[in-house]
Amino acid sequence: MRILGVDPGLNTTGYGLLEIVDRRPQLVEAGIIRSKPSGSLPERIQEIYDGLTETLESLRPDVLALEKLYAHYDRPTTAILMGHARGVICLAAAEHGIEVEDYAATQVKKTLTGNGRAPKTQMQLAIQRELNLATLPEPADVADALAIAFCHYCVARAQHVARSVSDD
Amino acid sequence: MRILGVDPGLNTTGYGLLEIVDRRPQLVEAGIIRSKPSGSLPERIQEIYDGLTETLESLRPDVLALEKLYAHYDRPTTAILMGHARGVICLAAAEHGIEVEDYAATQVKKTLTGNGRAPKTQMQLAIQRELNLATLPEPADVADALAIAFCHYCVARAQHVARSVSDD
Repeated sequence: MRILGVDPGLNTTGYGLLEIVDRRPQLVEAGIIRSKPSGSLPERIQEIYDGLTETLESLRPDVLALEKLYAHYDRPTTAILMGHARGVICLAAAEHGIEVEDYAATQVKKTLTGNGRAPKTQMQLAIQRELNLATLPEPADVADALAIAFCHYCVARAQHVARSVSDD
Repeated sequence: MRILGVDPGLNTTGYGLLEIVDRRPQLVEAGIIRSKPSGSLPERIQEIYDGLTETLESLRPDVLALEKLYAHYDRPTTAILMGHARGVICLAAAEHGIEVEDYAATQVKKTLTGNGRAPKTQMQLAIQRELNLATLPEPADVADALAIAFCHYCVARAQHVARSVSDD
């Protein structure tokens, strides 16, 4: 199974692909898609869409894991703009027949560290450990994308175990 | 000039095309793009994108007028979902080289009725009068889309007049 975690943003969209080899997740590739801050909103949305389409075609994931949409009551405009980016990411996935699964930020944090309110550094250290990385995953958007992909791996594994037990 | 007004929504996206003939806007076509409520978010987003792409290719507008994004403090999740729909609408416009202009809801209402808080029926009556329609524009999503297109027509006309005066 190849899981692409995506952390959507209008400026920077992080992504990270995990492949499950011998029941362990391994990092295949990670990076960021940037949009030009000088561009109009439609131009920037198109850059994100084109960048993600290219990423899907080169990495060929089986599933795309995204952070669940939630209302930032303190920054509603940021959340709406994030919705624009998330919209074209969902579109690119649908066009490639790739299933989209979403997870709340608290679930991602809890899965990795046991703490739903874990700070960023603790999350980066947990990812580094789980994926056996030589260095901390950087920038933050890549670390977030890998954390979401890892969360999907854990949930899928738990569901697989639950199914095996009920089949016995 | 052909102006396509679009009122984005996850369930129903209204559109209406005005063409300026002898300096007067005329209704060419209006309708709605629906997404299946039973579909997943990516499937619904794709239906909106595909429907709007088809509309752009058949109606060939010069400009797409959209309601300005704003924060619904009372319904932030609706606003984020609307952001998803708006994202793929902006993408379709960018892919077809069509300029996107946005207007605040209060500006649209004020332009049509003189009242930035005009109720829906007053807006529908104003559209009917301005576009010489036999009946009230229905449903509400179509009326809203036509109102946004009409607002763009008024703003573009005012800018044109301002430029002519400064050229004299």
